[in-house]
Amino acid sequence: MAFSPLLQQLITSLRCLPGVGPKTAQRMALHLLERDRDSARQLAAAMLDAVERVGECSRCRTLSEEPVCEICADESRDHSIICVLESPVDLMVIEQTGGFQGVYFVLKGHLSPIDGVGPDDLGISQLIDRVEQGGVSELILATNPTVEGEATAHYIAAQLNHCDVRISRIAHGVPVGGELEYVDGGTLAHAMAGRRSLRSES
Amino acid sequence: MAFSPLLQQLITSLRCLPGVGPKTAQRMALHLLERDRDSARQLAAAMLDAVERVGECSRCRTLSEEPVCEICADESRDHSIICVLESPVDLMVIEQTGGFQGVYFVLKGHLSPIDGVGPDDLGISQLIDRVEQGGVSELILATNPTVEGEATAHYIAAQLNHCDVRISRIAHGVPVGGELEYVDGGTLAHAMAGRRSLRSES
Repeated sequence: MAFSPLLQQLITSLRCLPGVGPKTAQRMALHLLERDRDSARQLAAAMLDAVERVGECSRCRTLSEEPVCEICADESRDHSIICVLESPVDLMVIEQTGGFQGVYFVLKGHLSPIDGVGPDDLGISQLIDRVEQGGVSELILATNPTVEGEATAHYIAAQLNHCDVRISRIAHGVPVGGELEYVDGGTLAHAMAGRRSLRSES
Repeated sequence: MAFSPLLQQLITSLRCLPGVGPKTAQRMALHLLERDRDSARQLAAAMLDAVERVGECSRCRTLSEEPVCEICADESRDHSIICVLESPVDLMVIEQTGGFQGVYFVLKGHLSPIDGVGPDDLGISQLIDRVEQGGVSELILATNPTVEGEATAHYIAAQLNHCDVRISRIAHGVPVGGELEYVDGGTLAHAMAGRRSLRSES
């Protein structure tokens, strides 16, 4: 071992971060110790703070240190439109587009019987209760366009068959700025099937 | 802002790590909070521990929480051969090859008048004192093969002109496993100039 025990321990601990292998961990540890000890102190404090105090919003299940998150508590938003997502990152990404004024519901995962993830783990009954209580006009199912994401979306839609609520799925198609040449067959088939008229429909 | 303040603060703090941009920081923060809170606690503790307790070895200037690092304190190593390096990472890399049995001296940088880095910042006088005190048979200058690294090596060699000590520079040449076709001209010129006889010299 060429490093001191404390340094070795820091390197090992840094590897819990996603995408950080042994070389990157080494570089990060040395950077923190050689050039940026103040930032390291701040980072450690922010990490402990967040780990101890961030829980989940009781309404939408996203990460939040308040019992109800900022978005759910915001009266100016349209609480009748709920966008259903797989993870808090997706929420952030949609918020950053700035175009959605409704509220969210975060499943924190997708149905995956093989991993033992069922509807209860995703809070689907909580979502259905909320729709059944009324006041919801549309549910936008924005789970990922993967097999599991699709299955989860279809499961939720099926559970709400009896409710008078509009249920939609985000569009699949060619990404903006992409080239048809590089788009896979499945996406292209979806894009063709989901084509929209350019003339305004009368 | 779509994230809670604590989460936002964690994301901002993570960006002090080298190679971590906004997207990676987001992914790291959510990974820690959603899946790995125990590791986050450990990482924060390791970080604080290292930042508070790791200083530098009084003999070789590498990072160490002891006044004298493990390598300098190791009596079984050859203390008459000193390998001079730019950074503690280089020390680690050489240690991992397992082939060097001498000791090290870490400059923590290279001469760079433009950034205000002079010989005193690199502990060069400490190195020269050590050589002048005797007991050193060889100084291997293993600074990086960059303009600054070369200048630093030549400066140290010039300062030790009056001492009866062997001063060597690591070899420049074609990397093992590389192909000549992809090697740059400067390296190739060094490799030609530094060629060695395959027959044992008589």
